[in-house]
Amino acid sequence: MAYEFKLVRLIQFVDTDMAGIVHFANFFRYMEETEHAFYRSLGLDVHPRDGGRTLGWPRVRAKCDYRHPLRFDDQVEIHLLVQEKREKSVSYLFLFNKQTGDEIQEVARGSLTVVCASMTQPGGKMASVPIPAQIAAKIEVAPTGHPVPS
Amino acid sequence: MAYEFKLVRLIQFVDTDMAGIVHFANFFRYMEETEHAFYRSLGLDVHPRDGGRTLGWPRVRAKCDYRHPLRFDDQVEIHLLVQEKREKSVSYLFLFNKQTGDEIQEVARGSLTVVCASMTQPGGKMASVPIPAQIAAKIEVAPTGHPVPS
Amino acid sequence: MAYEFKLVRLIQFVDTDMAGIVHFANFFRYMEETEHAFYRSLGLDVHPRDGGRTLGWPRVRAKCDYRHPLRFDDQVEIHLLVQEKREKSVSYLFLFNKQTGDEIQEVARGSLTVVCASMTQPGGKMASVPIPAQIAAKIEVAPTGHPVPS
Amino acid sequence: MAYEFKLVRLIQFVDTDMAGIVHFANFFRYMEETEHAFYRSLGLDVHPRDGGRTLGWPRVRAKCDYRHPLRFDDQVEIHLLVQEKREKSVSYLFLFNKQTGDEIQEVARGSLTVVCASMTQPGGKMASVPIPAQIAAKIEVAPTGHPVPS
Repeated sequence: MAYEFKLVRLIQFVDTDMAGIVHFANFFRYMEETEHAFYRSLGLDVHPRDGGRTLGWPRVRAKCDYRHPLRFDDQVEIHLLVQEKREKSVSYLFLFNKQTGDEIQEVARGSLTVVCASMTQPGGKMASVPIPAQIAAKIEVAPTGHPVPS
Repeated sequence: MAYEFKLVRLIQFVDTDMAGIVHFANFFRYMEETEHAFYRSLGLDVHPRDGGRTLGWPRVRAKCDYRHPLRFDDQVEIHLLVQEKREKSVSYLFLFNKQTGDEIQEVARGSLTVVCASMTQPGGKMASVPIPAQIAAKIEVAPTGHPVPS
Repeated sequence: MAYEFKLVRLIQFVDTDMAGIVHFANFFRYMEETEHAFYRSLGLDVHPRDGGRTLGWPRVRAKCDYRHPLRFDDQVEIHLLVQEKREKSVSYLFLFNKQTGDEIQEVARGSLTVVCASMTQPGGKMASVPIPAQIAAKIEVAPTGHPVPS
Repeated sequence: MAYEFKLVRLIQFVDTDMAGIVHFANFFRYMEETEHAFYRSLGLDVHPRDGGRTLGWPRVRAKCDYRHPLRFDDQVEIHLLVQEKREKSVSYLFLFNKQTGDEIQEVARGSLTVVCASMTQPGGKMASVPIPAQIAAKIEVAPTGHPVPS
């Protein structure tokens, strides 16, 4: 059972744009990458088969506030915290902390709300379903008062 | 002077993921593409030179609510509306309307808040600056009560 | 029946990198976009259903030679030419011509070899199959001596 | 001094497309990622400053042959080998080896030819220049007969 996960990532060249910084849309890719690493850390498949159906996690909301840019070769820690867990959805908070030597700077803060959905086949129609008990049992909400760097 | 812009776009194969739908991060690329087309429609450079400096529009906030998926070959209209104009920033609302024959379905709704920033050189430090008068004069806030499909 | 197609495209901001030019991998996205527009121009689905199976065009070879960079807001014409048509595969040549006023400059030249493949379901195993006759009948090889800008 | 480098990488969800496999253009991103990791392994900056100028490595040729698809969650080793070193350019070979338990399968083979170029400022004009001696001294051509999995 876990309510957080940290992924450390090196910023790649292809993620930058002509302004010399990471393109803002890529922060959403980093969030998802961290979310998936979180599932793996819990021993969960990202797209588990459940009988004849496949489960997935379509997004219903995504958000990011940007404070400072990230640049090529920056090392960033993406800190996932479970904000909310409901019958069919989970909300995650993501803190982007840039690491320069001993110094840490919060450069962005994002969130994703994902819904548990079932597909009878890949590419097919998705319908939201309750999060299976064995998955829900592994994810817990971060305690209030959990220290969040401002 | 304008407060809205509409871009019609065909969904490309590369924008889909293994769930058979447009990857959620790509909606932010579509928003930016529409924002830039809006500037062009006003006769504005996206990265104007102003004396020795270059102006840009770094994002400070990005958000999207997803209701229905977009798929390969879908035709989507992205409707930009100016929500707010301040001394140094502009906020845009984006309505994603999928067009199927005569039918229109709102599939997503996003927003971007962008800040006018000055760089002495590409890739260099950015500092927020007041939006130059000749640019600000061309952008106006959409009237309240502007019909927004729910 | 056709052996060529031209797509004109504006270079988007997100396609650039911190060197201020279009990232080299994006030329392959432009090739595919042109290939798909070519199919549409022939009235063909890119992923036709054929009985219980779906056809697709996985790539077996991709190549690009870069001569000059493309930059944000450049207008580029991508000229597709059918180079070879075999029982199960097609090879395309792509000429990237940058348009500046009346001047045209070839900035890159790429190629794709794609194989006709059948999937019983999306995401499932693919097996190469002969190109269906009604598709093969619409695609012809460009005449030798077809004027190719050097 | 080195002539090879190996990067192991997990395939991310965003890199797949609706066919359920890694989009072919992403193999070029993986090649570049490996190339940059190779430079770092040699203690080299990817974009070194040299006096008032910045050096970069624009690509003049990129190529990939695809044999088998890569899928989400696959683990792939990208094996870089220096194929050729000239006064102003380097050519790299990349072997993509998918690892499944003890089994290894070559799924693709690519190459990049990169030219050493100098820019007086980011986003500015690039001119090819001889590879600086201290960089050239660290990169050597892989011995012929170097075992290459077929």
